[in-house]
Amino acid sequence: MNNYILKDENAIYYECGYSSDNAIYLRLGSEAFFLTDGRYTQEAKAQAKNCEVIQSHNLLKSARQLLRKERIRTLAYDPKEWDVQSLEFLQKTQTHFAPRRQLSWKKRIIKSPGEIELLRKAVELGAQAFESFAQQAQAGMDEYELNFLAKKALSHTGRYDLSFDPIVALDAEASKPHAMPTEQRLEEGRLLLMDAGLKYKRYCFDRTRTARFGKALEFSMEQRFSPVVQKAYDTVRKAHDQAIEKARSGMKASEVDALARGVIEKAGFGEYFIHSTGHGVGLDIHEMPFISSRSDTIIEEGMVYTVEPGIYLPGEFGIRIEDMVVMQNGRAEVL
Amino acid sequence: MNNYILKDENAIYYECGYSSDNAIYLRLGSEAFFLTDGRYTQEAKAQAKNCEVIQSHNLLKSARQLLRKERIRTLAYDPKEWDVQSLEFLQKTQTHFAPRRQLSWKKRIIKSPGEIELLRKAVELGAQAFESFAQQAQAGMDEYELNFLAKKALSHTGRYDLSFDPIVALDAEASKPHAMPTEQRLEEGRLLLMDAGLKYKRYCFDRTRTARFGKALEFSMEQRFSPVVQKAYDTVRKAHDQAIEKARSGMKASEVDALARGVIEKAGFGEYFIHSTGHGVGLDIHEMPFISSRSDTIIEEGMVYTVEPGIYLPGEFGIRIEDMVVMQNGRAEVL
Repeated sequence: MNNYILKDENAIYYECGYSSDNAIYLRLGSEAFFLTDGRYTQEAKAQAKNCEVIQSHNLLKSARQLLRKERIRTLAYDPKEWDVQSLEFLQKTQTHFAPRRQLSWKKRIIKSPGEIELLRKAVELGAQAFESFAQQAQAGMDEYELNFLAKKALSHTGRYDLSFDPIVALDAEASKPHAMPTEQRLEEGRLLLMDAGLKYKRYCFDRTRTARFGKALEFSMEQRFSPVVQKAYDTVRKAHDQAIEKARSGMKASEVDALARGVIEKAGFGEYFIHSTGHGVGLDIHEMPFISSRSDTIIEEGMVYTVEPGIYLPGEFGIRIEDMVVMQNGRAEVL
Repeated sequence: MNNYILKDENAIYYECGYSSDNAIYLRLGSEAFFLTDGRYTQEAKAQAKNCEVIQSHNLLKSARQLLRKERIRTLAYDPKEWDVQSLEFLQKTQTHFAPRRQLSWKKRIIKSPGEIELLRKAVELGAQAFESFAQQAQAGMDEYELNFLAKKALSHTGRYDLSFDPIVALDAEASKPHAMPTEQRLEEGRLLLMDAGLKYKRYCFDRTRTARFGKALEFSMEQRFSPVVQKAYDTVRKAHDQAIEKARSGMKASEVDALARGVIEKAGFGEYFIHSTGHGVGLDIHEMPFISSRSDTIIEEGMVYTVEPGIYLPGEFGIRIEDMVVMQNGRAEVL
């Protein structure tokens, strides 16, 4: 399909290297158009590549005029990207709108060498942030303060955008997949789970570590918990490692999921691993490929995804270890 | 219409006092249903009022089953709230889907006394945050640091969510309506514009102040700039004050807009006031009523909206003063 329409910011950025929070991108054969309002036209003209910038205070109307003028017969769109009201407005033309699910995600599933470099840089900045958080976390801080400290560290004090709101949760709170901060405080012997990310030039970083707070915090993979927690931790770590070491290009995503899930099930924790093993990462924090038991997607060279098995015992504790990997030379390399 | 379907988090929260990031709310005559996944059912059962909680790992499918089971003939939905793919899935029933634009916003346009109390509390916490920011802002900080300081102050160091990403911009940067941080630093004599907000129990605060940084920062309305800037500042302040003092219940929103716009036009700055005078505030940071030159909405008792005139001289400076008001006893009272 050589004709398509986009409005998602990341989908548009992928096409032309620029985007704004009020834009429509139209690809019509060999031509492309970037529609935006007066606040963004200067920047768009300077930065958007291989497309004509059209300024408009009514983007839908201008897009429709363009479709009429260019006599477009068929136009692809992602039915998840467009709301009913906007699409119905656009459809008042002779153009046939052809639904294409995950239109942009499918184009973006294999990362270029340039994109992989940006993701590596995001991971490098993110690793520094985890280190900086660990150095500043102190006994007595509550989850609100820890959460704010995570934002400070991840953003490098405002330099970078976050890829999502960080989760910093202690002990039983870590067992909730959508933990919100509480007034519980960091103390010696407590378990701390941190899931956090930042963006570098729009490309996302995502990592989770679980650690025991002793006199200080260390995010190394080697951790010493009480025997019960340690068994779960070692299981998650083994699931994480196996899913990375045994992944090969050409496997189905569901097979990669099974590599992690098998380890956890074998250790008797199967019912406590309540989510899928991972998800693609790129311009979106969650994108294709989805590493789940129901995904037939074939894992190929250049795909980037997270491996993040977890074990959650409600009311007791939660463990998750997450890294981003890139498929290179047939194997998964940790970024 | 006694049958409707919602998926927006704030729209659902308004109906039943609870919401999650994966939920569908169905009002079917005298019955109501809250559909969510296993992560949220416990909380939903404890907190969602006057509705039956249904746990599902496929909300759309469960909603469709419910429509079939209850033999619903007509169901209202907001065509801006629903994506094409989800609506098409739902529509595979005997039910007729009737579009109702701004379905939830229209219900929420008049605030109850309880809501006004929550908004007052949000404003109180927000005013403290502006004060705290002013005390901590120091010469030498760049816009990134100032932006981060705004997040720290507004969130009360992580206690409250932000209602939007704050804008803190210096001099010429303040003339950009979507200013992004730069490495420019705060120094004596510079103009600082801050537009920021937080949420208290989901209700939003929104305020803008423009100040001259002397030895320190003071957000009082009395400011001393150079003569050229001062003329613009005094004009914006007068526009802000007049739009508040002269507003009356029963006016059209466009008339309230004209109160501010008239002052700015009369002073010769008309072409530099490039946005509308204000917007409603509640669960959403931008909701009805919209105070624009094109809005026929009648301003009534209990409506809450911002008054935020501005003057922006590209490449030179920008001024904006914004407060939230509530219509009470026929007049606009500053919150």
